[in-house]
Amino acid sequence: MFQVRTDLALESKEKFEEDNVEVKGVRVEEEQLAPEIRVTRVYIDTENGARIMGKPKGSYITLEASDMMEENEQQQRKVAMELAKIVKNMMPEQKEQMSVLVVGLGNRHVTPDALGPYVVENMMINRHILQEFGPCALEHPDGKIVSAIVPGVMAQTGMESSEIIAGIIGKTKPGLVVVVDALAARSVRRLNRTIQISDTGINPGSGVGNHRHAINEESVGVPVIAIGVPTVVDAATIVSDTMDELVTAMRQSDTLQSLGASLSTLDDAEKRELVRELLSPNLNAMFVTPKDIDDAVRNLSHTVAEGLNLAFSS
Amino acid sequence: MFQVRTDLALESKEKFEEDNVEVKGVRVEEEQLAPEIRVTRVYIDTENGARIMGKPKGSYITLEASDMMEENEQQQRKVAMELAKIVKNMMPEQKEQMSVLVVGLGNRHVTPDALGPYVVENMMINRHILQEFGPCALEHPDGKIVSAIVPGVMAQTGMESSEIIAGIIGKTKPGLVVVVDALAARSVRRLNRTIQISDTGINPGSGVGNHRHAINEESVGVPVIAIGVPTVVDAATIVSDTMDELVTAMRQSDTLQSLGASLSTLDDAEKRELVRELLSPNLNAMFVTPKDIDDAVRNLSHTVAEGLNLAFSS
Amino acid sequence: MFQVRTDLALESKEKFEEDNVEVKGVRVEEEQLAPEIRVTRVYIDTENGARIMGKPKGSYITLEASDMMEENEQQQRKVAMELAKIVKNMMPEQKEQMSVLVVGLGNRHVTPDALGPYVVENMMINRHILQEFGPCALEHPDGKIVSAIVPGVMAQTGMESSEIIAGIIGKTKPGLVVVVDALAARSVRRLNRTIQISDTGINPGSGVGNHRHAINEESVGVPVIAIGVPTVVDAATIVSDTMDELVTAMRQSDTLQSLGASLSTLDDAEKRELVRELLSPNLNAMFVTPKDIDDAVRNLSHTVAEGLNLAFSS
Amino acid sequence: MFQVRTDLALESKEKFEEDNVEVKGVRVEEEQLAPEIRVTRVYIDTENGARIMGKPKGSYITLEASDMMEENEQQQRKVAMELAKIVKNMMPEQKEQMSVLVVGLGNRHVTPDALGPYVVENMMINRHILQEFGPCALEHPDGKIVSAIVPGVMAQTGMESSEIIAGIIGKTKPGLVVVVDALAARSVRRLNRTIQISDTGINPGSGVGNHRHAINEESVGVPVIAIGVPTVVDAATIVSDTMDELVTAMRQSDTLQSLGASLSTLDDAEKRELVRELLSPNLNAMFVTPKDIDDAVRNLSHTVAEGLNLAFSS
Repeated sequence: MFQVRTDLALESKEKFEEDNVEVKGVRVEEEQLAPEIRVTRVYIDTENGARIMGKPKGSYITLEASDMMEENEQQQRKVAMELAKIVKNMMPEQKEQMSVLVVGLGNRHVTPDALGPYVVENMMINRHILQEFGPCALEHPDGKIVSAIVPGVMAQTGMESSEIIAGIIGKTKPGLVVVVDALAARSVRRLNRTIQISDTGINPGSGVGNHRHAINEESVGVPVIAIGVPTVVDAATIVSDTMDELVTAMRQSDTLQSLGASLSTLDDAEKRELVRELLSPNLNAMFVTPKDIDDAVRNLSHTVAEGLNLAFSS
Repeated sequence: MFQVRTDLALESKEKFEEDNVEVKGVRVEEEQLAPEIRVTRVYIDTENGARIMGKPKGSYITLEASDMMEENEQQQRKVAMELAKIVKNMMPEQKEQMSVLVVGLGNRHVTPDALGPYVVENMMINRHILQEFGPCALEHPDGKIVSAIVPGVMAQTGMESSEIIAGIIGKTKPGLVVVVDALAARSVRRLNRTIQISDTGINPGSGVGNHRHAINEESVGVPVIAIGVPTVVDAATIVSDTMDELVTAMRQSDTLQSLGASLSTLDDAEKRELVRELLSPNLNAMFVTPKDIDDAVRNLSHTVAEGLNLAFSS
Repeated sequence: MFQVRTDLALESKEKFEEDNVEVKGVRVEEEQLAPEIRVTRVYIDTENGARIMGKPKGSYITLEASDMMEENEQQQRKVAMELAKIVKNMMPEQKEQMSVLVVGLGNRHVTPDALGPYVVENMMINRHILQEFGPCALEHPDGKIVSAIVPGVMAQTGMESSEIIAGIIGKTKPGLVVVVDALAARSVRRLNRTIQISDTGINPGSGVGNHRHAINEESVGVPVIAIGVPTVVDAATIVSDTMDELVTAMRQSDTLQSLGASLSTLDDAEKRELVRELLSPNLNAMFVTPKDIDDAVRNLSHTVAEGLNLAFSS
Repeated sequence: MFQVRTDLALESKEKFEEDNVEVKGVRVEEEQLAPEIRVTRVYIDTENGARIMGKPKGSYITLEASDMMEENEQQQRKVAMELAKIVKNMMPEQKEQMSVLVVGLGNRHVTPDALGPYVVENMMINRHILQEFGPCALEHPDGKIVSAIVPGVMAQTGMESSEIIAGIIGKTKPGLVVVVDALAARSVRRLNRTIQISDTGINPGSGVGNHRHAINEESVGVPVIAIGVPTVVDAATIVSDTMDELVTAMRQSDTLQSLGASLSTLDDAEKRELVRELLSPNLNAMFVTPKDIDDAVRNLSHTVAEGLNLAFSS
């Protein structure tokens, strides 16, 4: 059965609020950091909450800023600093110097999916300098030891990203993995203006290209922080949401009021049946993205990389 | 008012057939070239036909092949040979050796819009060889003299593509311009499996990035052949078509039959009103494209370039 | 006959100093702006100076900073501010608002030649905003009106860059052209740490890819400022310089002293004959470039674009 | 001490022939396959041969074709078929279906080093199809199971390519690794017209970017076939070879004959001393490459990928 898809915990929660469903085991905290930056923290505390939300237990922190995708150095810096704070708080404590493997998931040849690879291109990498010249050669001797990889997508490699990453972790033994990925949102209004930071890693079915295997502490053996930016909406989600808006629009439109009223009397099973029938099978492999996605992905990847570089340099 | 958008004359014609509207001044010829290649010729003969179709008078020839986007050398070669034939028939007769400027419209940094730039990268260019070494240095001495340009999009250049091209034509005086562009289709089923060849050039509002000014014989002073491949569907078009499918689906679904029937009694004005209300303004700057658009654009650009290279080499 | 090639006026002048040749009609001013930034101004005042230097009359200003190619935001900013000052001083005075066309010469697919295209990717373009929404929509209403083009190289387009640019200028009528290009230096020590700004435009034979036609006020009808960064040394130049170093090395090496002495007695004609014989014809189409040219070109193009954006925003 | 560098066993052998040194334990077989394709097989049979050649024991097969870098489909196909034959002969026998991991070494952002990444982009990958849909879904059911990875270079990842590959092999267990890399030749005449296939893997110090760790059966646990194409010459090698050519040129030039004669009386130690003194330390991080390296790398990567695809599809 078709389900409205979103990789944002924030949107999953909103969906239940729309439907007036109370979800036990999930807490939400909101904070307005500045006129233009908003932080929302969704905590999934119980297995029950996880089951209902369709996402693992853990923290999902969302940074939202309306002009995130524009080239505005000052604003990018502010967002990057908030991102750095959140990531630093989420990092596990370690006695010795922490080493981090940054993973840029996605396909560099598909613009909205290129966020992960682009972030990696802007990371300050120093593991090889430490290995070759020792700690004195590092710019920030107290910072983290940083390595990075762009594994590519399955059609390019024939391998699951999770296989590639688990193999590399087994060999290079980082203390933490940070996975950066482009996400699918439910609402076009969230595209390119939202960053989600989570301590749960990457889970099946998330991402633009539907990565199917988990990349989390359970599967790779070290803590995994996931950083995601929604750059697409599933085409099927747009259609499904249109269905809901149709009902609402009908209610509000004078000429159509009677129709809308009767349509809204359908129960949920009937609505789902209707949506299923409407969905062209072609739509499943399609996504919706803005026309200026090239600028958006470029600017967002700078911001995310700047935030991570800040978080790792001290 | 919102209009379902398609850059394919073939789809405009189909729309009228769906609505059982006869369009005078428009002729259609269909031909099945092989089990897997279909050619449809739409001729807009009169000003009246042009007004109704929303496209200028001229020939619009569509090549369709279901596996066009796959990497299949033999099939690509067949399609390329058909494309070459169509382009050669469309080229104006000239006494002296013809020189052609190939223009790759679109944004190379947005995957579904990169078709034009990629085609230019695969063109055999020889104008500079002729200028420097004379006709004996050409591989095909009887072929056309070929030059090419990727003008970039307005956000990158600050200039209309039409300004750039008209300037270059004024200086280099080609006898023919061939403009290659990614198009918007109405139906996701046509994406990446259709090539439209037209003797009318590029007209306002077509293309993925909504090029606004015409590039045709009237505006640039030489004949313009336009080659387009649909790689996206406008997000608004998906929503609008969903509306129509909703009505059909309702009629066919047992539980919803009565509702569908009453919805289908809306007249066209009421339907349009409903669609207008449904359309999120955000959707106007969005498009729908397949997840494997990188492979599709790469393979299609090889096919189109091969077809043009064949057409120009004799 | 082979001539040591450099696109830097500074190096041409140094060559004469090495050879103890006084060049009349050429003035040099040096200034240490900061411990790490050095400005050298070479003025070619007379036709005689131009003939001897092998470069047109005009000003050639060189910014040198040893760490220009590293990713160091503060240092990049300083260099960018000096570049902005120099460019602003060089711009012609105009009563009305100045419009500038920035041209990124070179081949984006050959790393050391990609500087021009990369600079254009980082420019703030606003001409289309002004055309569509009027002056109120501009971020800096008193700034320059900026457009940009990446014409590509002759093997890609079949056209001289000068033809393409002259055509575009004829159509869009900018008041100033700024051409950005990768250059060839004589010394590997100058690579990626030098920016030359000149009011003479681009002249035959300069650039990594040997652009052959002039792009200057005479050929395109508006003033042309050329901004160049040396990213390669001609392979033939390396060999030729080795010859000179060989003589010096021989003089200083105990075992070879007598040989070196006799070699140094060769007159210039004999030395040139020797060099000519040594040069493999294959070397003419070869260049020398550093292994980390990707980082260098990326960082330098950011600095140049930042400098130009600063110069044009007020 | 400086040593003339080449990654081609063929050139190492030629060097000894030039110097009239007989190398025991090394056999050479030459074959002219067609007027334009030449195959040379160098077998290093003994540890002594390996020590003198500076390369591990094993087979080094070189395909040479003068027009390999041009876009010529028929000639590319011939070379690809020969490459496929050589690779198939070199593959270890296995009872069950062989699985192959193709590794594209090098830096995709530095044109002459991008060969490996480009080859991977053109490989037919099927491991994921087999995993998901079973053997019936494969195009060539009797072919090899192919996966591929582009590990990136150390400055991008902070990790040795050998670490990344060993990790992935540990996880995905291929039966064979094929490593594709751009090489350094000694002579500019060999650039872009030579393919070396070897059963010894990648060894320290080879490749454009000086990969330092071995990727061979000993280090990764499975047989490794290395495929290399020389795209650069070390700048220091050019200078060193110039020294030799200088002596030869002096002997042949009338005016300089006496000088050349005396220079040629230097013994090898003296020559090396001279070369060492001539070498600018800057040159060590520099390479020489042709100006049209973009076309060369594109065409060569198509040929190599076509050869591998042929070898793996049956």
